[in-house]
Amino acid sequence: VASRRARGRPGEFALIDRYFRPLARDPGAFGLTDDAALYRQRPGDDLLFKADMIVAGVHFLADDPPGSIAKKALRVNLSDIAAKGGEPFGYLLSLALPADWTEDWIGEFAKGLAADQKEYGVTLLGGDTSLASGGVTVAVTAVGRIPRGEMVLRSGAKPGDAIFVSGTIGDAALGLRVRRGELPGGGKGAKHLLDRHLRPQPRVALAPVLRRHASASIDVSDGLVGDLGHICDTSGVSAELEAARVPLSRAARAVLAAQPDLLPAILNGGEDYEIVATVSEREAGAFAADAKAAGVPVARIGRIVAGKGPPTVVGEDGRRLRIAARSYTHF
Amino acid sequence: VASRRARGRPGEFALIDRYFRPLARDPGAFGLTDDAALYRQRPGDDLLFKADMIVAGVHFLADDPPGSIAKKALRVNLSDIAAKGGEPFGYLLSLALPADWTEDWIGEFAKGLAADQKEYGVTLLGGDTSLASGGVTVAVTAVGRIPRGEMVLRSGAKPGDAIFVSGTIGDAALGLRVRRGELPGGGKGAKHLLDRHLRPQPRVALAPVLRRHASASIDVSDGLVGDLGHICDTSGVSAELEAARVPLSRAARAVLAAQPDLLPAILNGGEDYEIVATVSEREAGAFAADAKAAGVPVARIGRIVAGKGPPTVVGEDGRRLRIAARSYTHF
Repeated sequence: VASRRARGRPGEFALIDRYFRPLARDPGAFGLTDDAALYRQRPGDDLLFKADMIVAGVHFLADDPPGSIAKKALRVNLSDIAAKGGEPFGYLLSLALPADWTEDWIGEFAKGLAADQKEYGVTLLGGDTSLASGGVTVAVTAVGRIPRGEMVLRSGAKPGDAIFVSGTIGDAALGLRVRRGELPGGGKGAKHLLDRHLRPQPRVALAPVLRRHASASIDVSDGLVGDLGHICDTSGVSAELEAARVPLSRAARAVLAAQPDLLPAILNGGEDYEIVATVSEREAGAFAADAKAAGVPVARIGRIVAGKGPPTVVGEDGRRLRIAARSYTHF
Repeated sequence: VASRRARGRPGEFALIDRYFRPLARDPGAFGLTDDAALYRQRPGDDLLFKADMIVAGVHFLADDPPGSIAKKALRVNLSDIAAKGGEPFGYLLSLALPADWTEDWIGEFAKGLAADQKEYGVTLLGGDTSLASGGVTVAVTAVGRIPRGEMVLRSGAKPGDAIFVSGTIGDAALGLRVRRGELPGGGKGAKHLLDRHLRPQPRVALAPVLRRHASASIDVSDGLVGDLGHICDTSGVSAELEAARVPLSRAARAVLAAQPDLLPAILNGGEDYEIVATVSEREAGAFAADAKAAGVPVARIGRIVAGKGPPTVVGEDGRRLRIAARSYTHF
């Protein structure tokens, strides 16, 4: 049930010592030498917790660069913390490795984490390593802080609210197709799409803007239409989305011009890690201005309407588009 | 990269709705309908975080009862929180399932969690489900509360301190051998050992006693000698352990009488989820009395000594026993 240590590779403790201890920079992590991490509360804060796991062959490909896998595992969690208006502080990591792991792989994986710790101001708080029963499996729990009572929920959207989305939508879903060799062409466009698939960019800079202005928000992981649908469900409202207003990258626009049937994959392909927020009409201008000041492009893409049910997606000709529910799940 | 939903089985959202939402009883978990859990701090508390993952074929066998797997995944984390003097409050769960998962399996798994939530007073705060790349993988992050400044570290042991251990040692390691068909005999003894392997009993009742009296503590997951060695390392001390004083169950004593060569496996086999604590001589009597009052049997098994290095284990004849470092790791 346990595995003998392979010759010439460091054991579990040596590995933690060499690659993960340097990441545990908070004094409460005790350099990973104790059984649990200590978090001293700061008055006036609430905490946010989020756990998400990524699995080889399900959320990434086994031969993706180890640093990208590490960053993706961390960032998908930071994205959720940001979408709630929180500021990520630390994370715990459970890493399961296949029997043929190499020290090089671990080194690259840890280097990816180190870079992201710097970029996002987070620290490793604890975790464990284990042999996997299949491919690499990375489970992260992120911890964020938020001023007391200011969490932005899914449930606050009201009829008449404007719907905004950050960044561009559809790149990651197209990037996955590039990765699989399913999209013809290449060059700069393909590189951009692939990069968006491999390296999600959590919108942590938008968090304070959401706290100030948003009535509801969610990060776009399952797909824009589906995730907006979660806001609708939880808020007891519906939504109208104008497909032509959904911001697309130049690369995605080029793909769409060549293959118009990819519109649903773009609008609801998922893994964008952008943020959809609803904002009252009165706050819409200030939200857009503050987002711009925070360096995050946002676009107004529709509005919340009374009623219940999934969002209606309207095409350029004013006709309703049928965007199927996700044709697959991660499960 | 994603899997089509198998016919006749609920999708990811339906599954969460049916089996996991009822476990998310804290208002801050929002019935698992939001992106993150909210934790409102209580003044005067510190928080403890612990993440540990268990994997089919590594920490349990794929055909173990699903409820046992769930309980083990949760309890190994609660054990660490308890060893630090903390009171577990909630947990996040990332569950990866093989392609042939069944709804019955999930139902039994969730039932195991529900029973333990009641037993230990914890609640599900969030998490996710995913397809596994191999067998079942369960990653849990536990959150505990502790009165500010009272965490019991590994690093506080001092020469002269008494060493105590809770419960009995070696049962789980022998239970694994029963499970594998490596131990002859059967009956009540085998059943007890197997049960100790499948269902660790975290010593949450000992937490307040540790806070009051212990200079250092750790839960016994890697093995009694090895885990006491972690206290020695971190505290900059060494230890003398009297093998004959280590408390054994009737079943373990019977096995040991028949196979004396199993002593190292008993003393350092791991997965006991008991607690080793060091206590100053002045506090030793009060510690033992308070532990008894809390319903947790504890036994004095040795003392901390000056110097550095792993614990010395002394046999009944006063000779030093050689207990090899763990012959395997989980990695």
